[in-house]
Amino acid sequence: MKIVILGSGNVATILGKALVDAGYDIVQVWSRKFENAKILAGYLDSDATDDLTQIRPDADLYLISVTDDAISSISNHLGSVKGVIAHTSGSTSIDVFSGKCAHYGVFYPFQTFSKEKPVPFKEIPVLIEAIDQTALSTLKEVAHSVSDTVKEYNSAQRTQLHIAGVFASNFTNHLYSIAERLLTESQMDFDLLRPLILETATKVQRLLPEAAQTGPAIRNDRNTMAVHQKQLANQPDLLAIYKLLSDHIITPLPRK
Amino acid sequence: MKIVILGSGNVATILGKALVDAGYDIVQVWSRKFENAKILAGYLDSDATDDLTQIRPDADLYLISVTDDAISSISNHLGSVKGVIAHTSGSTSIDVFSGKCAHYGVFYPFQTFSKEKPVPFKEIPVLIEAIDQTALSTLKEVAHSVSDTVKEYNSAQRTQLHIAGVFASNFTNHLYSIAERLLTESQMDFDLLRPLILETATKVQRLLPEAAQTGPAIRNDRNTMAVHQKQLANQPDLLAIYKLLSDHIITPLPRK
Repeated sequence: MKIVILGSGNVATILGKALVDAGYDIVQVWSRKFENAKILAGYLDSDATDDLTQIRPDADLYLISVTDDAISSISNHLGSVKGVIAHTSGSTSIDVFSGKCAHYGVFYPFQTFSKEKPVPFKEIPVLIEAIDQTALSTLKEVAHSVSDTVKEYNSAQRTQLHIAGVFASNFTNHLYSIAERLLTESQMDFDLLRPLILETATKVQRLLPEAAQTGPAIRNDRNTMAVHQKQLANQPDLLAIYKLLSDHIITPLPRK
Repeated sequence: MKIVILGSGNVATILGKALVDAGYDIVQVWSRKFENAKILAGYLDSDATDDLTQIRPDADLYLISVTDDAISSISNHLGSVKGVIAHTSGSTSIDVFSGKCAHYGVFYPFQTFSKEKPVPFKEIPVLIEAIDQTALSTLKEVAHSVSDTVKEYNSAQRTQLHIAGVFASNFTNHLYSIAERLLTESQMDFDLLRPLILETATKVQRLLPEAAQTGPAIRNDRNTMAVHQKQLANQPDLLAIYKLLSDHIITPLPRK
């Protein structure tokens, strides 16, 4: 199977590497900047271009791994290809390709990516969605080749999962940043918090988070929360976050 | 060294066990409810009481591990003991003992505790503070016997660390709960998020959180954030949290 990758960021890089490792032939890499296309193409033993009119028409799969708002304009250039076209975005509907392409879908690896700390791709769930049987069988085959967990979810579910990921990963990492800032301000080292952070994430690998909740808010310990809010008084941004999240912990989550 | 433990909750239980394992003699366990004192005393091969007037006066160390607002009233009953008195609270000043006791301090194991998922006590940092040299040497000796990391911090630093822990652990766990709720509502399994959660915590074991930040807010990806906010529109509580944390990620953290 011949594959073209459009994009040269984290996802394109890690996914491209996983595809090569699974035995696929990456025949072309496109990036808006030729320099970036060349770097990734070199890594994947492929050809590079920065010209959308030069995209090869004979590949079996075109994976678009760019910023969400660039997917639509790039797909305008892929109307004549016969292969399957898919984007890798968690927040973009499959309908972005509607009326432009023949066989299309979504190939969304659901994980935080970083060039610094690689995760085995096999452990990353891949969520697929397809407009027709041709797209579905191609995306399924490729997904099962690179990941141990493949799920078929629709665009609304994928958006919901992406939002859940923002809460569980992006926002939690930002809370780590806030904690680090609080320690630095008081001449303490972030190392003190690292075991606690790992332990908090490890606990919910088996338990549900509600069963693992600790801290002054779940105990409704008003005295401790008052002490904390007093100490945060000169940092209104942190105080607002402290209050909103504490109140939300105190009020049980409604279940639909 | 003879130790009396006042309290029978998670911290009292786990700390008591670590002290017994380190060879200390727990001579008495007090709890407000005799039944609870009896259970912990049985576990620690100790005596139980629910009567503060019956606390033995001859111990070397009295560890008060109760809810923060009960520390003061309990310490009123310990005015005549000769040993060192310490509480285990992150949010209570050392001054809670002022004018009541002779040698006193704080012995704060800094970690989330749970009966379900035990952590080796050696890995839990213990923060100590002491009013005099007698208290300091006793607390230092005991702390080094049970933990690999012992730090001397004052009450203001301890409060700051406790607040940082609330952000990095209690609040992040609550964000996991929110994510779990979002998945359940859309017929998806929390298992999908577990690897992402662990990976997010693992990344900051080496990196600083600011360097590990990903997601639509740090990219200032307004389109994606608009899609997310639209989908959260019927859950104003989650929408408020989404907006506040996204805005805070977009605005760089000030450094003092």
